[in-house]
Amino acid sequence: MPVALTLAEIASRLGGRVVGASDALIRQVGSLERAGPDQITFFSQLRHKSKLSATRAAAVILAEDARDLTSIPRIVCENPYAYFARVSQLFNPIEPPEPLRHATAMVARGARIAVTARIEAGAVVDDGAFVGERVWVGAGCYLGQDCSIGDDSRLHPSVVVYGGCRIGARALIHSGAVIGADGFGIAQDAGRWIKIPQIGRVIIGDDVEIGANSTIDRGAIDDTVLEDGVKLDNQVQIGHNVRVGAHTAIAGCAGVAGSAEIGRHCTIGGGAVILGHLKLADRVNISAGTLISRSILEPGTYTGVFPFDVNAAWTRNAVWLRHLSELSDRVRELEKLLGRKGKNG
Amino acid sequence: MPVALTLAEIASRLGGRVVGASDALIRQVGSLERAGPDQITFFSQLRHKSKLSATRAAAVILAEDARDLTSIPRIVCENPYAYFARVSQLFNPIEPPEPLRHATAMVARGARIAVTARIEAGAVVDDGAFVGERVWVGAGCYLGQDCSIGDDSRLHPSVVVYGGCRIGARALIHSGAVIGADGFGIAQDAGRWIKIPQIGRVIIGDDVEIGANSTIDRGAIDDTVLEDGVKLDNQVQIGHNVRVGAHTAIAGCAGVAGSAEIGRHCTIGGGAVILGHLKLADRVNISAGTLISRSILEPGTYTGVFPFDVNAAWTRNAVWLRHLSELSDRVRELEKLLGRKGKNG
Amino acid sequence: MPVALTLAEIASRLGGRVVGASDALIRQVGSLERAGPDQITFFSQLRHKSKLSATRAAAVILAEDARDLTSIPRIVCENPYAYFARVSQLFNPIEPPEPLRHATAMVARGARIAVTARIEAGAVVDDGAFVGERVWVGAGCYLGQDCSIGDDSRLHPSVVVYGGCRIGARALIHSGAVIGADGFGIAQDAGRWIKIPQIGRVIIGDDVEIGANSTIDRGAIDDTVLEDGVKLDNQVQIGHNVRVGAHTAIAGCAGVAGSAEIGRHCTIGGGAVILGHLKLADRVNISAGTLISRSILEPGTYTGVFPFDVNAAWTRNAVWLRHLSELSDRVRELEKLLGRKGKNG
Repeated sequence: MPVALTLAEIASRLGGRVVGASDALIRQVGSLERAGPDQITFFSQLRHKSKLSATRAAAVILAEDARDLTSIPRIVCENPYAYFARVSQLFNPIEPPEPLRHATAMVARGARIAVTARIEAGAVVDDGAFVGERVWVGAGCYLGQDCSIGDDSRLHPSVVVYGGCRIGARALIHSGAVIGADGFGIAQDAGRWIKIPQIGRVIIGDDVEIGANSTIDRGAIDDTVLEDGVKLDNQVQIGHNVRVGAHTAIAGCAGVAGSAEIGRHCTIGGGAVILGHLKLADRVNISAGTLISRSILEPGTYTGVFPFDVNAAWTRNAVWLRHLSELSDRVRELEKLLGRKGKNG
Repeated sequence: MPVALTLAEIASRLGGRVVGASDALIRQVGSLERAGPDQITFFSQLRHKSKLSATRAAAVILAEDARDLTSIPRIVCENPYAYFARVSQLFNPIEPPEPLRHATAMVARGARIAVTARIEAGAVVDDGAFVGERVWVGAGCYLGQDCSIGDDSRLHPSVVVYGGCRIGARALIHSGAVIGADGFGIAQDAGRWIKIPQIGRVIIGDDVEIGANSTIDRGAIDDTVLEDGVKLDNQVQIGHNVRVGAHTAIAGCAGVAGSAEIGRHCTIGGGAVILGHLKLADRVNISAGTLISRSILEPGTYTGVFPFDVNAAWTRNAVWLRHLSELSDRVRELEKLLGRKGKNG
Repeated sequence: MPVALTLAEIASRLGGRVVGASDALIRQVGSLERAGPDQITFFSQLRHKSKLSATRAAAVILAEDARDLTSIPRIVCENPYAYFARVSQLFNPIEPPEPLRHATAMVARGARIAVTARIEAGAVVDDGAFVGERVWVGAGCYLGQDCSIGDDSRLHPSVVVYGGCRIGARALIHSGAVIGADGFGIAQDAGRWIKIPQIGRVIIGDDVEIGANSTIDRGAIDDTVLEDGVKLDNQVQIGHNVRVGAHTAIAGCAGVAGSAEIGRHCTIGGGAVILGHLKLADRVNISAGTLISRSILEPGTYTGVFPFDVNAAWTRNAVWLRHLSELSDRVRELEKLLGRKGKNG
């Protein structure tokens, strides 16, 4: 049965201060633009002020400094976006699955499956695998030998977990993710590549989310590790023996090469590339599209993107990149002629 | 039975003007280099003139200005590449599937499947899903609750469509594509990420093609939308609440971040990244590898790629990027010394 | 039964010279940091000297110049990393699969499957497909019509091979890889995209490894070709009609656009993009994140990455990229004023 709560009830559960009609009845969240008369929305960016004026929502979540920008019922709080996230969780709760072992699921005899778990059609659970309480294994998933899935985790259809990998509690893994495939370990010898068997595992903490078609390689010798609370978007690639620190978030299409160590509370933008065998300190933010080629020891935001331009202008300017060193020499030469001492002179 | 057509028959169906033997019999298309004596090829780039001279094809499709570059039978038309596409469709028609509901497919009772549809081995169709006329659902596909697949669509093996998503008619979706996984919606709160339930859908128009292992996220609140005629290559990532305008084509490995609005008739090159919450006008072309960091309001071609070089030269020049602002200051200083007023002085 | 070998036995099989106790018994490989007392490790980078001192491994593989950096039993050889690869293969041999045709696998009548092959649960093998000796087809794989998989190949779960594609012997293909989906062949005509049927195949040589969720498109007309010994990491995209030369290795998230010809013994770094219709000579190395926009005819290493910086510094400098051409003009102007003839003046 769908949830319905008054603003007062929401605030009593989640905190915040109600301004205006506290008995406004809410049944769902909505966007500023499209929320209907029984929906609550949020406002966190002043540049969307006109959308706030036009909203048809029943109520809005906002910060103190935006309190008087509207007269509709509202909840004032410190972090409207996080508050909104919690409100949306109230109206869209994750239900524990109904226990099931579908007739077409192939569960090996030596697998240990909690009776409260749900194994959907066509899923395959190999020998020695462990599936915890209330775990939801989607259709067509594959759980390899001796892998382990913690309580309350949910694997959407077509997730593959290779043998030996361990996933903590409350994981959310989207379709097409592959956990534990071989790392790219090859040694050059006389013009041939020799494969290095990848005998490590992937070890994933609690409360980790992994996006669709992301891949996390098993370790070459030791393990690849994702600590608690790590969030990966879609099509992220994590190389072998990487360690991703707790509560770090990595956006779509980013790649982390082998043996990189990413700190805690980092953010990595979409399409960024982190090269191998380097370290990122805690609280490092990497901008989208940036390639990180050496360790970063200080928190902060780091960027390395070529700014786009109209193609003709780009062509005209980009050619000079090949002459920067020479251009600098010429400036130094002029400085000498004029008796100036340049910074790099 | 394979098709065989004379040049005259082809021209009567598709237009264009036959020059040379109009009774040349064609059974298939071929490349300039490898076409055999019953195959037709096409010629659209003058720099391949020598390949045209050497071709063993029975006939060639070309434009007026290339008419006299060969003496083999030919069809002269305005757009040889598009004409070739249509000719290839004649010789390689897509047959409607033979209706089937494979014994190992799991179709929920509440699913509605057209009798002309084909559901292959191991496919799973969940409750309330709708599958239109002559739809081909490949082996191991998953169609979630209440999703909908329009007439004449074809899903290759291992496509996943999450619940509630709608796909129009004549879609072509390649293996490993994931439609409707959660967007990357997380809110920061006291060093923890709080998940924002993703309750929107993916809505896809007619005549859309989606490449292998591409991912299209469902909306956070409102929907993610791909309009009619959109073409996505492999490993493309479309974030939540993105709108892609009609007849826009996106090449492999490109990523579009959340809430971006891409116009109609755009092209986005391989590996390009479009940041979130921005707009691209109609008829914008983004070069491969380019990161777009702000809205583009005018049609045109936009580029932002660092030109590659021999590594040693790159190293020598790239270091100066960190001193561009300073170099500019030094030039201005020199201009002042010489009594010149620089553009930025 | 796990293998146990003395250093002398290892050296007698693989070469190299034992220094110290040649009867040290080894049961597995380990990393410098974590190897235990019955494990052998390797040392190849002088900057890890302190780790060598601290290792608890039973033995170490190293080069002549590092021979005296430790006193533990050791094998001295020319290429420690390649030697280590071979040692690890000794201790972690790939066993041929136990023959099986799982009750839930769907094998079409016209498929030809070697009796020594293993077809796991839920795999689908279509009509005319050929599966060689000791091939391992993982759970939920799909092998399309008339495709062919060479002897001793291993396909991990959820690999898709489209119809007509040919894979050589000893292939190792990771989960989610898609071989033979349509290339991105569309022709523009009056604002609409017309699909060009993709009638070529994918032809893959022997000893090829393909990473998780990588995609290799079938040819538009002729075939896409990967020669012997090619190694692809995860999430690599290979466009239609590409040719990848023998023993070339491509790191994660790299993309190769249509009709590119990559030479032999090349390496392509993570996230690199190779544009279409160009050639790379043999022994070309492309740095990670680099976009290659024209052919490369000479062996060597090529780079084109924007070096990252602290965001504020990046912002200050990057803006000048839009004025490089102008800055160069101003320098030339100054040179003229001072009677100097600049290089580009």
